[in-house]
Amino acid sequence: MAAVRSFWGWGYQKDELKISEIKALATLLGDFVKPETPIKTPPKKDSLNLQEPKIKLPTSLLKLADASNQQRARHCYGRSFKDVVRGLNNEFIDPPDFVLYPKTVKDVIDILDYSSHKDIAVICYGGGSSVVGGVEFDHEMKQNYAGWISMDMTCMDKLNYLDKDSRSASFQAGILGPSLEEKLKPNNFTLRHFPQSFEFSSLGGWIATRAGGHFAMGPTHIDDFVESLEVVTPVGTTVTRRLPASGAASDENRLWLGSEGMLGIVTSAWIRVQPRTRFVAKADVAFDSFKEGISCLKDIAQSGLYPSNCRLLDPLEALINGVYAGNKAILLVGFESYDHDVSSSFKRAKEICNSHGGVVVSESDIDNEISRKSDSKQTAGGSWKNSFIKAPYFRDALVRLGLVVETFETAVTWDNFNELYFNISNEINRYLSEKSNGTQWVTCRITHAYPNGLAPYFSVIASCKNNSQTAVWNDIKQIANETIIKFNGTITHHHAVGKEHRDGYKKEKSELYLDYLKNTKKYFDPKSILNPGNVIRLL
Amino acid sequence: MAAVRSFWGWGYQKDELKISEIKALATLLGDFVKPETPIKTPPKKDSLNLQEPKIKLPTSLLKLADASNQQRARHCYGRSFKDVVRGLNNEFIDPPDFVLYPKTVKDVIDILDYSSHKDIAVICYGGGSSVVGGVEFDHEMKQNYAGWISMDMTCMDKLNYLDKDSRSASFQAGILGPSLEEKLKPNNFTLRHFPQSFEFSSLGGWIATRAGGHFAMGPTHIDDFVESLEVVTPVGTTVTRRLPASGAASDENRLWLGSEGMLGIVTSAWIRVQPRTRFVAKADVAFDSFKEGISCLKDIAQSGLYPSNCRLLDPLEALINGVYAGNKAILLVGFESYDHDVSSSFKRAKEICNSHGGVVVSESDIDNEISRKSDSKQTAGGSWKNSFIKAPYFRDALVRLGLVVETFETAVTWDNFNELYFNISNEINRYLSEKSNGTQWVTCRITHAYPNGLAPYFSVIASCKNNSQTAVWNDIKQIANETIIKFNGTITHHHAVGKEHRDGYKKEKSELYLDYLKNTKKYFDPKSILNPGNVIRLL
Repeated sequence: MAAVRSFWGWGYQKDELKISEIKALATLLGDFVKPETPIKTPPKKDSLNLQEPKIKLPTSLLKLADASNQQRARHCYGRSFKDVVRGLNNEFIDPPDFVLYPKTVKDVIDILDYSSHKDIAVICYGGGSSVVGGVEFDHEMKQNYAGWISMDMTCMDKLNYLDKDSRSASFQAGILGPSLEEKLKPNNFTLRHFPQSFEFSSLGGWIATRAGGHFAMGPTHIDDFVESLEVVTPVGTTVTRRLPASGAASDENRLWLGSEGMLGIVTSAWIRVQPRTRFVAKADVAFDSFKEGISCLKDIAQSGLYPSNCRLLDPLEALINGVYAGNKAILLVGFESYDHDVSSSFKRAKEICNSHGGVVVSESDIDNEISRKSDSKQTAGGSWKNSFIKAPYFRDALVRLGLVVETFETAVTWDNFNELYFNISNEINRYLSEKSNGTQWVTCRITHAYPNGLAPYFSVIASCKNNSQTAVWNDIKQIANETIIKFNGTITHHHAVGKEHRDGYKKEKSELYLDYLKNTKKYFDPKSILNPGNVIRLL
Repeated sequence: MAAVRSFWGWGYQKDELKISEIKALATLLGDFVKPETPIKTPPKKDSLNLQEPKIKLPTSLLKLADASNQQRARHCYGRSFKDVVRGLNNEFIDPPDFVLYPKTVKDVIDILDYSSHKDIAVICYGGGSSVVGGVEFDHEMKQNYAGWISMDMTCMDKLNYLDKDSRSASFQAGILGPSLEEKLKPNNFTLRHFPQSFEFSSLGGWIATRAGGHFAMGPTHIDDFVESLEVVTPVGTTVTRRLPASGAASDENRLWLGSEGMLGIVTSAWIRVQPRTRFVAKADVAFDSFKEGISCLKDIAQSGLYPSNCRLLDPLEALINGVYAGNKAILLVGFESYDHDVSSSFKRAKEICNSHGGVVVSESDIDNEISRKSDSKQTAGGSWKNSFIKAPYFRDALVRLGLVVETFETAVTWDNFNELYFNISNEINRYLSEKSNGTQWVTCRITHAYPNGLAPYFSVIASCKNNSQTAVWNDIKQIANETIIKFNGTITHHHAVGKEHRDGYKKEKSELYLDYLKNTKKYFDPKSILNPGNVIRLL
């Protein structure tokens, strides 16, 4: 039997932390959690008390529907901190009237046709991992719609075609990360796109939100892997030609990449795949300070070496994630290839590290053909990687302990980084010292590095007085958004705009472009049924 | 004194081939040119007899104008074969009423404002090297406009700012290739974007047409180098934020990249620059057949080695360009870096070549820190590179000898290559054998290679009966366009759509997308003054 997805929190029910684990976590956190703090209990599915569907569906669509309270609750929100708090509190406000599971492109067209006709909003749902309100209904738009449908794409999960010659594969867009990799594996291929949400995010979701992969450099964004797309809009369907490259006017694929469910529905995609990794060399390198680490990271990013991985953790981040416990910033640097030995590049990267005072604290054998499976000599960075994937489950446990937990990210050019970093750390810490009784962590890691800039990722854990979890979270979000925009960052490097970043996005873009976007939305979606209020608000 | 640009042919007047050189070329070409063939004489500037400007300009714009016959003739066409034939024949039909040289963004705005008001078409002109009709007026649209202005951007050629830290530079968009490199050189930087038209193409033109650089793999398209843009449209101006990357909805830069002067005018751009190359290793490798070369090229493109250069010439192409005279396909493979020795990658690439039966026929020392200047041990590929840059001057000489000369290019996935290649070669050769008295060359080189496909570039030289140069050229163009689209290529990999590829583009794209493009054009350019008929026809 398939594992059951949690309707209030991250991932699978079976993987949520047990009470004993949460208690152990509380002990580890010391002052953050007062001993008397109760652990919040998630609602039982039988306690769900959702309003009745306000709309009716024709039989042809009803056969695609699941109107159970559990599925409607699960599809009510994404999985941001705010979403989990609301789920824990059994607050499922304005849930979808129906969850529909299209199985074919025709089903998608039928759903859009009917909804356009009946003023029903349609929000496309892939893995449901949005942390920016991307899959929830914009409640302020309520009066404009008869109701809303969460269109869950996960039944459209087929491998349509594998072209081994050109190393590309066509998938239906609802396929989730693990299943996609599973289907490529028998032919020794991989997409090698591993966002933190990998388990609970879909190919179509990656494309719609321009997902960033785990790897720090080189091809890692889903944008890099898209060869062609099939997209259904309320006014018609478009298919782009399979091509390795083209210079024929603007690139249509780029219109759909990042369209965030507001212009059309990606129904299938040809993506670039590659053979699975055969050669690996990696090290954890310690720096006396984050600043020295940054300076080294820049040199590596500008060296043309393009390591697969090159993540920098500040000392606290390294400590919390069990990577290094000695007050050092840690750079996780690694090279991978399916074709050739990578020792020459690895050697050069370590030279650069040394020139910045970096000390290798852990290193994998550079023997050729290390397979991932037999990678028993795991670096500390390896343990970080596990905690990376498991992090959202821990986040949910922290929520249950009454803490505030948030991660936010941006990207900025190198010349603007220091100011941005200083101001964000400062503003968030200053705010929290009023709200948190002094128990707060604000950490930073650099998830992606480019020759002309970098992507810092901030994590915040704090206690909060008076149990005002959501209010504090809202404030943090606001401060982060404003500070990022003020100091020349982008409102998001890979979390998407959704609804949480809409105000920041508005400040980031020109009025002319925002109006173009509205014009484009009106063209593809004249009744404005697709994810109203996502990215921009029309009404 | 600045060198004078030819008003009928490629480049500088001083660089056009002398009569003695053309005669020598004719001798080399043997049967292609009958001894009695006259060499066509270009028109003198005094013989230009252009119709008078049909429009009037206010004084504020007149001060930016050049209405000399010579400049109006030079800006009448791009530099395709057809353009040169027309220029040679002193056929400057519907020349621009005025050539305007804006110096500031305000000048550009003023020109668009006035033109919108007076129904004057505005065609943006950078270096003028278009081979797809991109800078000429669509004569079938004539009745809709009072006249037309060629807006020459080359006075907007400043380096605005160099950010050494982030390795990016802001330039006004009218700067031409050599001048841009010249301004980066004192700081040891380069953009490293070298299209064949380098000398006579502008930054803004590269962006508007999504130019492809000389390098075969890795970052080589101008798309890869754009950090942010400033764009003026008839309804307003937009500036994108300087960012190394962003996941905030669709990428606005990609809307302007490839907009081909039909949506707005790029007035300045931040571009990613890099230090000049210090390490070089390169070789020319011979294969018994083009097919074996292709098979090797695929393995290298899929190896993750990303050589700087990896061009494959078929035997005739290698012969004509003086690279190799022994009926072999030649692969020019090279690695470059500003940071590190490249011998390890070079060695692996040669291993791959060997495994396909490739034999190294010429090789540069792999000593570190080979500078380009002191590259005296030049490979035959080096001589090819020179002929690459000089090729358009030779093309003009061939035109004067009455031959038909055309190059066209596409990109296609690996699985579709053989069929595309076979059919194009076949169709063009079959057509020419009727028209050319049996003297024809149809050659192919692969200019760019990707993990999932490649970009073949075809060159055609043929004599033609009855002096029907343009008719034969038109037929070739038509056959090429149709065959490319039929066999799953793109209508253009880096020459742009312009007007010559418009029909093919229409077949490549979905109706829905074409209608979106029209809708977008109407939004940014409600009076449709910007390069009417380029890419798509509205009216």
